[in-house]
Amino acid sequence: MVTDRERAAFEAGIKLGALYHQWVGAPVSRETAESLERAIEGSVSLQPAVMQVKVSLDRDLMSPNVFGYSELSGLMFDVELVTRVGKARCTATLSRSEDYPLMSLVACDEAPPDPGHR
Amino acid sequence: MVTDRERAAFEAGIKLGALYHQWVGAPVSRETAESLERAIEGSVSLQPAVMQVKVSLDRDLMSPNVFGYSELSGLMFDVELVTRVGKARCTATLSRSEDYPLMSLVACDEAPPDPGHR
Amino acid sequence: MVTDRERAAFEAGIKLGALYHQWVGAPVSRETAESLERAIEGSVSLQPAVMQVKVSLDRDLMSPNVFGYSELSGLMFDVELVTRVGKARCTATLSRSEDYPLMSLVACDEAPPDPGHR
Amino acid sequence: MVTDRERAAFEAGIKLGALYHQWVGAPVSRETAESLERAIEGSVSLQPAVMQVKVSLDRDLMSPNVFGYSELSGLMFDVELVTRVGKARCTATLSRSEDYPLMSLVACDEAPPDPGHR
Repeated sequence: MVTDRERAAFEAGIKLGALYHQWVGAPVSRETAESLERAIEGSVSLQPAVMQVKVSLDRDLMSPNVFGYSELSGLMFDVELVTRVGKARCTATLSRSEDYPLMSLVACDEAPPDPGHR
Repeated sequence: MVTDRERAAFEAGIKLGALYHQWVGAPVSRETAESLERAIEGSVSLQPAVMQVKVSLDRDLMSPNVFGYSELSGLMFDVELVTRVGKARCTATLSRSEDYPLMSLVACDEAPPDPGHR
Repeated sequence: MVTDRERAAFEAGIKLGALYHQWVGAPVSRETAESLERAIEGSVSLQPAVMQVKVSLDRDLMSPNVFGYSELSGLMFDVELVTRVGKARCTATLSRSEDYPLMSLVACDEAPPDPGHR
Repeated sequence: MVTDRERAAFEAGIKLGALYHQWVGAPVSRETAESLERAIEGSVSLQPAVMQVKVSLDRDLMSPNVFGYSELSGLMFDVELVTRVGKARCTATLSRSEDYPLMSLVACDEAPPDPGHR
Protein backbone atom coordinates (compact mmCIF):
# COMPACT_ATOMS: atom_id res chain seq x y z
CA MET A 1 0.00 0.00 0.00
CA VAL A 2 2.97 2.27 0.67
CA THR A 3 6.34 1.75 -1.04
CA ASP A 4 9.79 2.24 0.45
CA ARG A 5 10.32 5.16 -1.91
CA GLU A 6 7.18 6.80 -0.55
CA ARG A 7 8.36 6.18 2.98
CA ALA A 8 11.76 7.67 2.23
CA ALA A 9 10.00 10.72 0.74
CA PHE A 10 7.83 11.00 3.85
CA GLU A 11 10.89 10.85 6.10
CA ALA A 12 12.61 13.56 4.07
CA GLY A 13 9.56 15.78 4.48
CA ILE A 14 9.47 15.23 8.24
CA LYS A 15 13.11 16.25 8.62
CA LEU A 16 12.79 19.42 6.55
CA GLY A 17 9.55 20.51 8.22
CA ALA A 18 10.99 19.82 11.65
CA LEU A 19 14.28 21.56 10.99
CA TYR A 20 12.55 24.66 9.66
CA HIS A 21 10.17 25.15 12.56
CA GLN A 22 12.68 24.13 15.21
CA TRP A 23 15.32 26.67 14.25
CA VAL A 24 13.57 29.62 12.61
CA GLY A 25 13.69 32.60 14.94
CA ALA A 26 17.00 31.76 16.59
CA PRO A 27 19.30 34.77 17.00
CA VAL A 28 22.23 34.45 14.60
CA SER A 29 25.06 36.53 13.16
CA ARG A 30 27.78 35.95 10.59
CA GLU A 31 30.09 35.02 13.47
CA THR A 32 27.78 32.40 15.00
CA ALA A 33 26.37 31.04 11.73
CA GLU A 34 28.84 28.20 11.45
CA SER A 35 28.25 26.94 14.97
CA LEU A 36 24.52 26.98 14.25
CA GLU A 37 24.97 25.10 10.95
CA ARG A 38 26.90 22.35 12.73
CA ALA A 39 24.35 22.13 15.55
CA ILE A 40 21.48 21.82 13.06
CA GLU A 41 23.30 19.13 11.08
CA GLY A 42 24.12 17.24 14.26
CA SER A 43 20.54 17.40 15.39
CA VAL A 44 19.06 16.27 12.06
CA SER A 45 21.58 13.44 11.72
CA LEU A 46 20.26 11.84 14.90
CA GLN A 47 16.86 11.18 13.41
CA PRO A 48 15.80 7.92 11.78
CA ALA A 49 16.32 7.37 8.03
CA VAL A 50 18.76 10.28 7.62
CA MET A 51 21.79 9.31 5.51
CA GLN A 52 23.26 12.72 4.93
CA VAL A 53 22.51 16.36 5.60
CA LYS A 54 24.30 19.58 4.66
CA VAL A 55 23.15 22.93 6.02
CA SER A 56 24.35 26.32 4.78
CA LEU A 57 22.92 29.58 6.06
CA ASP A 58 23.02 32.58 3.76
CA ARG A 59 25.25 35.18 5.47
CA ASP A 60 24.19 37.82 2.96
CA LEU A 61 20.71 37.85 4.45
CA MET A 62 22.08 38.33 7.96
CA SER A 63 21.83 42.11 8.01
CA PRO A 64 22.34 43.23 11.59
CA ASN A 65 19.35 44.80 13.32
CA VAL A 66 19.76 47.83 15.62
CA PHE A 67 21.31 45.54 18.20
CA GLY A 68 23.79 44.03 15.77
CA TYR A 69 22.36 40.58 15.15
CA SER A 70 19.80 38.83 12.94
CA GLU A 71 17.19 36.20 13.39
CA LEU A 72 17.31 32.95 11.48
CA SER A 73 14.67 33.18 8.75
CA GLY A 74 13.39 30.56 6.35
CA LEU A 75 15.00 32.28 3.38
CA MET A 76 18.48 31.85 4.86
CA PHE A 77 18.37 28.06 4.62
CA ASP A 78 20.13 26.04 1.98
CA VAL A 79 19.74 22.41 2.99
CA GLU A 80 20.34 19.16 1.16
CA LEU A 81 19.17 15.96 2.74
CA VAL A 82 19.31 12.28 1.78
CA THR A 83 17.02 9.74 3.43
CA ARG A 84 16.89 5.97 3.08
CA VAL A 85 14.24 3.37 3.81
CA GLY A 86 15.07 -0.21 2.79
CA LYS A 87 16.79 0.14 -0.58
CA ALA A 88 14.95 3.34 -1.46
CA ARG A 89 16.71 6.67 -1.23
CA CYS A 90 15.36 10.20 -1.61
CA THR A 91 17.12 13.53 -1.95
CA ALA A 92 15.31 16.66 -0.87
CA THR A 93 16.25 20.31 -0.54
CA LEU A 94 15.16 23.44 1.26
CA SER A 95 16.24 26.55 -0.52
CA ARG A 96 15.12 29.99 -1.47
CA SER A 97 12.88 30.27 -4.51
CA GLU A 98 12.30 34.00 -4.96
CA ASP A 99 10.65 34.99 -1.69
CA TYR A 100 9.59 31.55 -0.54
CA PRO A 101 11.65 28.97 1.36
CA LEU A 102 10.84 26.03 -0.89
CA MET A 103 11.09 22.39 0.11
CA SER A 104 11.56 20.13 -2.93
CA LEU A 105 11.74 16.43 -3.42
CA VAL A 106 14.53 16.24 -5.97
CA ALA A 107 14.93 12.53 -6.63
CA CYS A 108 13.95 9.09 -5.40
CA ASP A 109 15.55 5.87 -6.51
CA GLU A 110 16.36 2.35 -5.42
CA ALA A 111 19.95 1.62 -4.51
CA PRO A 112 21.48 -0.59 -7.22
CA PRO A 113 21.84 -4.26 -6.22
CA ASP A 114 25.03 -4.84 -4.27
CA PRO A 115 27.58 -6.13 -6.87
CA GLY A 116 28.95 -8.56 -4.30
CA HIS A 117 25.71 -10.57 -4.42
CA ARG A 118 25.91 -12.68 -7.57
CA MET B 1 12.00 10.58 -11.41
CA VAL B 2 9.59 11.44 -8.62
CA THR B 3 5.95 10.38 -8.69
CA ASP B 4 2.94 12.31 -7.46
CA ARG B 5 2.47 9.73 -4.71
CA GLU B 6 6.02 10.35 -3.55
CA ARG B 7 5.40 14.08 -3.61
CA ALA B 8 2.21 13.68 -1.61
CA ALA B 9 4.12 11.57 0.93
CA PHE B 10 6.84 14.24 1.11
CA GLU B 11 4.23 16.96 1.71
CA ALA B 12 2.63 14.91 4.47
CA GLY B 13 6.01 14.55 6.15
CA ILE B 14 6.68 18.29 5.95
CA LYS B 15 3.38 19.11 7.63
CA LEU B 16 3.83 16.64 10.50
CA GLY B 17 7.45 17.63 11.13
CA ALA B 18 6.55 21.31 11.04
CA LEU B 19 3.52 20.97 13.27
CA TYR B 20 5.45 19.01 15.86
CA HIS B 21 8.35 21.41 16.21
CA GLN B 22 6.23 24.53 15.90
CA TRP B 23 3.90 23.69 18.77
CA VAL B 24 5.78 21.45 21.19
CA GLY B 25 6.55 23.38 24.36
CA ALA B 26 3.49 25.63 24.28
CA PRO B 27 1.82 26.04 27.68
CA VAL B 28 -1.52 24.20 27.65
CA SER B 29 -4.20 22.98 30.07
CA ARG B 30 -7.37 20.96 29.73
CA GLU B 31 -9.25 24.27 29.50
CA THR B 32 -7.16 25.73 26.67
CA ALA B 33 -6.58 22.47 24.78
CA GLU B 34 -9.48 22.93 22.41
CA SER B 35 -8.48 26.44 21.40
CA LEU B 36 -4.98 25.14 20.70
CA GLU B 37 -6.32 22.21 18.64
CA ARG B 38 -8.29 24.60 16.44
CA ALA B 39 -5.35 26.99 16.06
CA ILE B 40 -3.06 24.13 15.00
CA GLU B 41 -5.62 22.80 12.51
CA GLY B 42 -6.15 26.28 11.10
CA SER B 43 -2.44 26.80 10.74
CA VAL B 44 -1.77 23.44 9.05
CA SER B 45 -4.74 23.87 6.69
CA LEU B 46 -3.16 26.97 5.18
CA GLN B 47 -0.21 25.05 3.79
CA PRO B 48 0.03 23.68 0.26
CA ALA B 49 -1.25 20.15 -0.54
CA VAL B 50 -3.23 19.78 2.69
CA MET B 51 -6.70 18.32 2.07
CA GLN B 52 -7.70 17.54 5.62
CA VAL B 53 -6.27 17.65 9.11
CA LYS B 54 -7.65 16.61 12.51
CA VAL B 55 -5.77 17.35 15.72
CA SER B 56 -6.61 15.91 19.13
CA LEU B 57 -4.49 16.53 22.20
CA ASP B 58 -4.52 13.93 24.95
CA ARG B 59 -5.96 15.63 28.05
CA ASP B 60 -4.96 12.67 30.21
CA LEU B 61 -1.31 13.57 29.77
CA MET B 62 -1.92 17.18 30.82
CA SER B 63 -1.06 16.73 34.49
CA PRO B 64 -0.76 20.18 36.01
CA ASN B 65 2.72 21.19 37.18
CA VAL B 66 3.21 23.15 40.42
CA PHE B 67 1.81 26.21 38.70
CA GLY B 68 -1.29 24.41 37.44
CA TYR B 69 -0.57 23.99 33.75
CA SER B 70 1.24 21.65 31.36
CA GLU B 71 3.45 21.97 28.37
CA LEU B 72 2.47 20.52 25.02
CA SER B 73 4.59 17.41 24.52
CA GLY B 74 4.97 15.18 21.50
CA LEU B 75 3.17 12.30 23.19
CA MET B 76 -0.01 14.36 23.53
CA PHE B 77 -0.55 14.58 19.77
CA ASP B 78 -3.06 12.52 17.86
CA VAL B 79 -3.08 13.90 14.32
CA GLU B 80 -4.52 12.59 11.08
CA LEU B 81 -3.61 14.36 7.88
CA VAL B 82 -4.50 13.90 4.20
CA THR B 83 -2.38 15.47 1.47
CA ARG B 84 -2.92 15.57 -2.28
CA VAL B 85 -0.62 16.18 -5.25
CA GLY B 86 -2.16 15.76 -8.69
CA LYS B 87 -4.38 12.69 -8.37
CA ALA B 88 -2.24 11.12 -5.65
CA ARG B 89 -3.37 11.21 -2.06
CA CYS B 90 -1.59 10.19 1.14
CA THR B 91 -2.83 9.73 4.67
CA ALA B 92 -0.38 10.12 7.53
CA THR B 93 -0.65 10.15 11.30
CA LEU B 94 1.22 11.36 14.33
CA SER B 95 0.35 9.39 17.43
CA ARG B 96 1.82 7.85 20.49
CA SER B 97 3.50 4.49 20.08
CA GLU B 98 4.56 3.51 23.60
CA ASP B 99 6.91 6.32 24.58
CA TYR B 100 7.61 7.68 21.14
CA PRO B 101 5.53 10.19 19.17
CA LEU B 102 5.46 8.22 15.92
CA MET B 103 4.81 9.70 12.49
CA SER B 104 3.46 7.08 10.08
CA LEU B 105 2.60 7.07 6.42
CA VAL B 106 -0.59 5.06 6.49
CA ALA B 107 -1.70 4.93 2.87
CA CYS B 108 -1.05 6.40 -0.55
CA ASP B 109 -3.34 5.98 -3.54
CA GLU B 110 -4.47 7.61 -6.75
CA ALA B 111 -7.90 9.18 -6.76
CA PRO B 112 -10.21 7.11 -8.99
CA PRO B 113 -10.89 8.65 -12.40
CA ASP B 114 -13.71 11.16 -12.27
CA PRO B 115 -16.83 9.22 -13.49
CA GLY B 116 -18.05 12.30 -15.34
CA HIS B 117 -15.11 12.09 -17.77
CA ARG B 118 -15.93 9.31 -20.21
CA MET C 1 18.53 41.29 47.35
CA VAL C 2 15.78 41.14 44.75
CA THR C 3 12.57 43.18 45.10
CA ASP C 4 9.07 42.14 44.11
CA ARG C 5 9.13 44.78 41.39
CA GLU C 6 12.28 43.22 39.96
CA ARG C 7 10.66 39.80 40.12
CA ALA C 8 7.55 41.08 38.35
CA ALA C 9 9.78 42.61 35.65
CA PHE C 10 11.63 39.30 35.30
CA GLU C 11 8.35 37.41 34.93
CA ALA C 12 7.17 39.85 32.26
CA GLY C 13 10.39 39.29 30.33
CA ILE C 14 10.02 35.50 30.53
CA LYS C 15 6.52 35.64 29.11
CA LEU C 16 7.40 37.91 26.19
CA GLY C 17 10.55 35.99 25.30
CA ALA C 18 8.69 32.69 25.49
CA LEU C 19 5.71 33.86 23.50
CA TYR C 20 7.90 35.24 20.73
CA HIS C 21 10.00 32.14 20.20
CA GLN C 22 7.14 29.72 20.69
CA TRP C 23 4.91 31.19 18.01
CA VAL C 24 7.15 32.87 15.43
CA GLY C 25 7.13 30.81 12.24
CA ALA C 26 3.58 29.50 12.56
CA PRO C 27 1.61 29.61 9.30
CA VAL C 28 -1.07 32.29 9.54
CA SER C 29 -3.47 34.24 7.34
CA ARG C 30 -5.94 37.05 7.88
CA GLU C 31 -8.63 34.37 8.29
CA THR C 32 -6.82 32.37 10.95
CA ALA C 33 -5.24 35.33 12.78
CA GLU C 34 -7.97 35.66 15.36
CA SER C 35 -7.90 32.00 16.32
CA LEU C 36 -4.14 32.28 16.74
CA GLU C 37 -4.45 35.44 18.87
CA ARG C 38 -6.84 33.67 21.23
CA ALA C 39 -4.65 30.56 21.42
CA ILE C 40 -1.59 32.67 22.28
CA GLU C 41 -3.49 34.60 24.94
CA GLY C 42 -4.86 31.39 26.42
CA SER C 43 -1.41 29.88 26.51
CA VAL C 44 0.28 32.90 28.12
CA SER C 45 -2.52 33.28 30.69
CA LEU C 46 -1.73 29.85 32.11
CA GLN C 47 1.72 30.87 33.25
CA PRO C 48 2.58 32.08 36.76
CA ALA C 49 2.39 35.82 37.61
CA VAL C 50 0.35 36.76 34.52
CA MET C 51 -2.53 39.11 35.38
CA GLN C 52 -3.55 40.17 31.91
CA VAL C 53 -2.46 39.70 28.32
CA LYS C 54 -3.75 41.13 25.03
CA VAL C 55 -2.37 39.93 21.69
CA SER C 56 -3.05 41.59 18.33
CA LEU C 57 -1.41 40.43 15.13
CA ASP C 58 -0.92 42.97 12.37
CA ARG C 59 -3.01 41.76 9.41
CA ASP C 60 -1.39 44.36 7.13
CA LEU C 61 1.90 42.47 7.31
CA MET C 62 0.23 39.19 6.36
CA SER C 63 0.89 39.43 2.64
CA PRO C 64 0.14 36.04 1.12
CA ASN C 65 3.11 34.12 -0.29
CA VAL C 66 2.80 32.15 -3.54
CA PHE C 67 0.73 29.57 -1.69
CA GLY C 68 -1.63 32.13 -0.24
CA TYR C 69 -0.55 32.29 3.40
CA SER C 70 2.01 34.03 5.62
CA GLU C 71 4.24 33.07 8.46
CA LEU C 72 3.96 34.71 11.84
CA SER C 73 6.88 37.12 12.16
CA GLY C 74 8.09 39.12 15.12
CA LEU C 75 7.02 42.40 13.54
CA MET C 76 3.38 41.28 13.45
CA PHE C 77 3.09 41.19 17.24
CA ASP C 78 1.38 43.85 19.31
CA VAL C 79 1.25 42.49 22.85
CA GLU C 80 0.47 44.11 26.18
CA LEU C 81 1.09 42.12 29.33
CA VAL C 82 0.64 42.77 33.05
CA THR C 83 2.45 40.65 35.65
CA ARG C 84 2.17 40.66 39.41
CA VAL C 85 4.44 39.42 42.20
CA GLY C 86 3.33 40.22 45.76
CA LYS C 87 2.02 43.78 45.56
CA ALA C 88 4.29 44.72 42.68
CA ARG C 89 2.91 44.99 39.19
CA CYS C 90 4.68 45.51 35.85
CA THR C 91 3.34 46.33 32.42
CA ALA C 92 5.37 45.31 29.39
CA THR C 93 4.83 45.40 25.64
CA LEU C 94 6.06 43.76 22.49
CA SER C 95 5.54 45.92 19.45
CA ARG C 96 7.15 47.02 16.27
CA SER C 97 9.71 49.78 16.52
CA GLU C 98 10.74 50.48 12.92
CA ASP C 99 12.15 47.13 11.80
CA TYR C 100 12.69 45.60 15.20
CA PRO C 101 10.16 43.75 17.34
CA LEU C 102 10.86 45.62 20.57
CA MET C 103 10.10 44.33 24.05
CA SER C 104 9.69 47.21 26.53
CA LEU C 105 9.15 47.40 30.24
CA VAL C 106 6.64 50.23 30.38
CA ALA C 107 5.89 50.62 34.07
CA CYS C 108 6.35 48.99 37.46
CA ASP C 109 4.50 50.00 40.59
CA GLU C 110 3.21 48.71 43.88
CA ALA C 111 -0.51 48.14 44.15
CA PRO C 112 -2.03 50.77 46.48
CA PRO C 113 -2.73 49.52 50.00
CA ASP C 114 -6.06 47.76 50.27
CA PRO C 115 -8.52 50.43 51.60
CA GLY C 116 -10.10 47.84 53.85
CA HIS C 117 -6.89 47.62 55.92
CA ARG C 118 -6.87 50.68 58.13
CA MET D 1 9.07 54.86 36.74
CA VAL D 2 11.26 51.88 35.88
CA THR D 3 14.74 51.45 37.35
CA ASP D 4 17.81 50.04 35.61
CA ARG D 5 17.70 47.05 37.95
CA GLU D 6 14.12 46.35 36.86
CA ARG D 7 15.17 46.67 33.23
CA ALA D 8 18.07 44.28 33.75
CA ALA D 9 15.67 41.80 35.41
CA PHE D 10 13.27 42.17 32.46
CA GLU D 11 16.09 41.51 29.97
CA ALA D 12 17.14 38.41 31.91
CA GLY D 13 13.58 37.11 31.75
CA ILE D 14 13.37 37.71 28.01
CA LYS D 15 16.54 35.73 27.37
CA LEU D 16 15.52 32.74 29.48
CA GLY D 17 11.99 32.60 28.09
CA ALA D 18 13.31 32.90 24.54
CA LEU D 19 16.03 30.32 24.97
CA TYR D 20 13.63 27.81 26.45
CA HIS D 21 11.00 28.00 23.74
CA GLN D 22 13.49 28.32 20.91
CA TRP D 23 15.39 25.16 21.70
CA VAL D 24 13.02 22.79 23.49
CA GLY D 25 12.13 19.91 21.17
CA ALA D 26 15.44 19.82 19.29
CA PRO D 27 16.78 16.31 18.73
CA VAL D 28 19.87 15.79 20.90
CA SER D 29 22.11 13.00 22.16
CA ARG D 30 25.07 12.79 24.52
CA GLU D 31 27.31 13.08 21.45
CA THR D 32 25.69 16.25 20.08
CA ALA D 33 24.98 17.90 23.42
CA GLU D 34 28.13 19.96 23.50
CA SER D 35 27.65 21.37 20.01
CA LEU D 36 24.12 22.34 21.01
CA GLU D 37 25.32 23.99 24.24
CA ARG D 38 27.78 26.13 22.30
CA ALA D 39 25.18 27.06 19.67
CA ILE D 40 22.71 28.12 22.37
CA GLU D 41 25.34 30.18 24.18
CA GLY D 42 26.40 31.81 20.93
CA SER D 43 22.84 32.65 20.07
CA VAL D 44 21.98 34.10 23.49
CA SER D 45 25.21 36.13 23.60
CA LEU D 46 24.15 38.07 20.52
CA GLN D 47 21.17 39.61 22.24
CA PRO D 48 21.17 43.03 23.91
CA ALA D 49 22.10 43.37 27.61
CA VAL D 50 23.68 39.92 27.87
CA MET D 51 27.00 40.00 29.73
CA GLN D 52 27.54 36.30 30.26
CA VAL D 53 25.75 33.02 29.66
CA LYS D 54 26.65 29.42 30.52
CA VAL D 55 24.53 26.52 29.27
CA SER D 56 24.84 22.92 30.46
CA LEU D 57 22.49 20.19 29.32
CA ASP D 58 21.95 17.25 31.64
CA ARG D 59 23.24 14.17 29.80
CA ASP D 60 21.69 11.89 32.42
CA LEU D 61 18.24 12.82 31.18
CA MET D 62 19.14 12.01 27.57
CA SER D 63 17.89 8.45 27.59
CA PRO D 64 17.80 7.26 24.00
CA ASN D 65 14.36 6.59 22.51
CA VAL D 66 13.75 3.60 20.21
CA PHE D 67 15.66 5.40 17.49
CA GLY D 68 18.63 6.15 19.72
CA TYR D 69 18.26 9.85 20.42
CA SER D 70 16.47 12.22 22.79
CA GLU D 71 14.64 15.47 22.52
CA LEU D 72 15.79 18.55 24.39
CA SER D 73 13.40 19.02 27.29
CA GLY D 74 13.07 21.86 29.76
CA LEU D 75 14.35 19.73 32.62
CA MET D 76 17.69 19.21 30.87
CA PHE D 77 18.65 22.89 31.08
CA ASP D 78 21.09 24.32 33.58
CA VAL D 79 21.63 27.93 32.54
CA GLU D 80 23.24 30.87 34.30
CA LEU D 81 22.88 34.29 32.77
CA VAL D 82 24.10 37.78 33.68
CA THR D 83 22.47 40.86 32.17
CA ARG D 84 23.40 44.52 32.50
CA VAL D 85 21.52 47.75 31.92
CA GLY D 86 23.36 50.95 32.85
CA LYS D 87 25.17 50.13 36.08
CA ALA D 88 22.60 47.54 37.14
CA ARG D 89 23.35 43.86 36.83
CA CYS D 90 21.13 40.83 37.33
CA THR D 91 21.93 37.14 37.59
CA ALA D 92 19.25 34.63 36.66
CA THR D 93 19.14 30.87 36.32
CA LEU D 94 17.09 28.18 34.62
CA SER D 95 17.41 24.86 36.36
CA ARG D 96 15.46 21.86 37.43
CA SER D 97 13.49 22.16 40.61
CA GLU D 98 11.94 18.72 41.15
CA ASP D 99 9.83 18.26 38.02
CA TYR D 100 9.66 21.87 36.93
CA PRO D 101 12.21 23.80 34.86
CA LEU D 102 12.39 26.84 37.13
CA MET D 103 13.57 30.29 36.06
CA SER D 104 14.86 32.29 39.04
CA LEU D 105 16.09 35.82 39.48
CA VAL D 106 19.00 35.20 41.80
CA ALA D 107 20.47 38.64 42.38
CA CYS D 108 20.36 42.24 41.20
CA ASP D 109 22.87 44.89 42.15
CA GLU D 110 24.50 48.07 40.96
CA ALA D 111 28.07 47.84 39.77
CA PRO D 112 30.34 49.56 42.30
CA PRO D 113 31.51 53.03 41.27
CA ASP D 114 34.57 52.90 39.07
CA PRO D 115 37.54 53.53 41.45
CA GLY D 116 39.25 55.59 38.78
CA HIS D 117 36.55 58.30 39.08
CA ARG D 118 37.39 60.22 42.22
